[in-house]
Amino acid sequence: MTKDPVDNASSTTDARDGTLVIAPLPGMPLIHPGDDLAGIIGDALDRAGLHPHDRDVLVIAQKVVSKAEGRLVALDSVTPSKRARRVAARVDKDPRLVELVLREAAEVVACRPGALIVRHRCGYVLANAGIDHSNVDARAGTTVLLLPCDADASAARLRAALERRYGVTVAVVINDSTGRAWRNGTVGIALGAAGLPALLDMRGWSDLFGRRLEITETGFADEIAAAASLVMGQADEGRPVVLLRGLRWHGESNAAALLRPPADDLFRLGAGAHADVEIDP
Amino acid sequence: MTKDPVDNASSTTDARDGTLVIAPLPGMPLIHPGDDLAGIIGDALDRAGLHPHDRDVLVIAQKVVSKAEGRLVALDSVTPSKRARRVAARVDKDPRLVELVLREAAEVVACRPGALIVRHRCGYVLANAGIDHSNVDARAGTTVLLLPCDADASAARLRAALERRYGVTVAVVINDSTGRAWRNGTVGIALGAAGLPALLDMRGWSDLFGRRLEITETGFADEIAAAASLVMGQADEGRPVVLLRGLRWHGESNAAALLRPPADDLFRLGAGAHADVEIDP
Repeated sequence: MTKDPVDNASSTTDARDGTLVIAPLPGMPLIHPGDDLAGIIGDALDRAGLHPHDRDVLVIAQKVVSKAEGRLVALDSVTPSKRARRVAARVDKDPRLVELVLREAAEVVACRPGALIVRHRCGYVLANAGIDHSNVDARAGTTVLLLPCDADASAARLRAALERRYGVTVAVVINDSTGRAWRNGTVGIALGAAGLPALLDMRGWSDLFGRRLEITETGFADEIAAAASLVMGQADEGRPVVLLRGLRWHGESNAAALLRPPADDLFRLGAGAHADVEIDP
Repeated sequence: MTKDPVDNASSTTDARDGTLVIAPLPGMPLIHPGDDLAGIIGDALDRAGLHPHDRDVLVIAQKVVSKAEGRLVALDSVTPSKRARRVAARVDKDPRLVELVLREAAEVVACRPGALIVRHRCGYVLANAGIDHSNVDARAGTTVLLLPCDADASAARLRAALERRYGVTVAVVINDSTGRAWRNGTVGIALGAAGLPALLDMRGWSDLFGRRLEITETGFADEIAAAASLVMGQADEGRPVVLLRGLRWHGESNAAALLRPPADDLFRLGAGAHADVEIDP
């Protein structure tokens, strides 16, 4: 195998030409609670001959961050509350899963049989509060994986550890695949980010004709997360870490900047429609 | 400049390693109504020494497709209806723009001062029906650009012309930047697609432990559109065409497959909340 294939790929072109190279990190092992994820990623980078450059972005799948942080819960250990059982009957889901979803949630945004969409206490609007039970290495169906407690903090810790190891300035994005309003199919979004502007403010930029742009903010980290999802794959490919080389940016904001405050949101259903599942009655 | 930099970039790595290269097409001229866009893109590819390979994806900005298709409208030529003037007062926008938005729309999804979000008659839910007046080469503020009449058909035509020219099998995605529910910042999405599965059906795929995946559909063309947006830039960079090399897929569906039918959508506000701006009273 060629050493540092991403370096080769990007160095054959003029860096100013704007070409972006997105490479999966091979050889990542299964991650277990308590693992030193940054150390494991660094070792995999070294084995692959990939030395991070200044302004490389490492995109890391939420699942491996959550697993390293011990966010696995055995469903058998969960006793559903009366409210969880009531919501579970309405959405036709396991009451123990619903109990965990409600504990993770600040607000139920919408529900119907088969769907329970909440605002996570970190602010993301996600089905089942992002709780997942695929690619969790336990008995099928009995163990689930919660989101990291604070994905921006996780991204900052991973970034700091990788910068210490390599002596370069990198960015880290933690991504997850989520559904959307109005559109079929999941796409990658950024749950956490460090070292780049998750929300890119373009005020003051001008168009080709010198006029001020109407659209002034880009979901930069979300576009990075979606691009990385293309390379990670969704299933048995086992590519939880992806390296992006070739992006430019100024400034820094974490993924919390991507969360629209509920008061500004046109797409909350009226509280009255969900009064019987409100979390803080 | 090195000849065929994308070819160089991707050939230095084993194609099976899953590395994705995303390159802007340099030297695209300004596009005018009636231009042969596929021919102009082919000429720019040739000048850049980029010869499309089988399974390359060309992502083309909606703006240049719309311009080539003559979708420019001078606002001075528009006479707003009584309904458009009423909605314009409510959303605090130019009544002539609102008239065009309502003509393009099948349904008003949400509105408030500064925001008019509709379901386009092609099915996309977009602010101002996707009508834009940045990067339109006319007197500032007087000319606007509508979306293509049928972006899937536009993508299919562009794909066919490029395949004839190069004798390879390529895919085409037409992208645009849009806002989202719940999240700040715009991201690229696919308005049109040809030659790949815009919605990737993963039913039957299994996770690392052999279990059936819970998430069975990925917004593949939307992730491609977002990745390309990172390279296109949003402002005065003038990179309306981007080439992606390194993706694999099976099957084919156009971008209409990404549109959730209104009846399945949890995030339509009740008709009652917008009765006074319903398009088909």
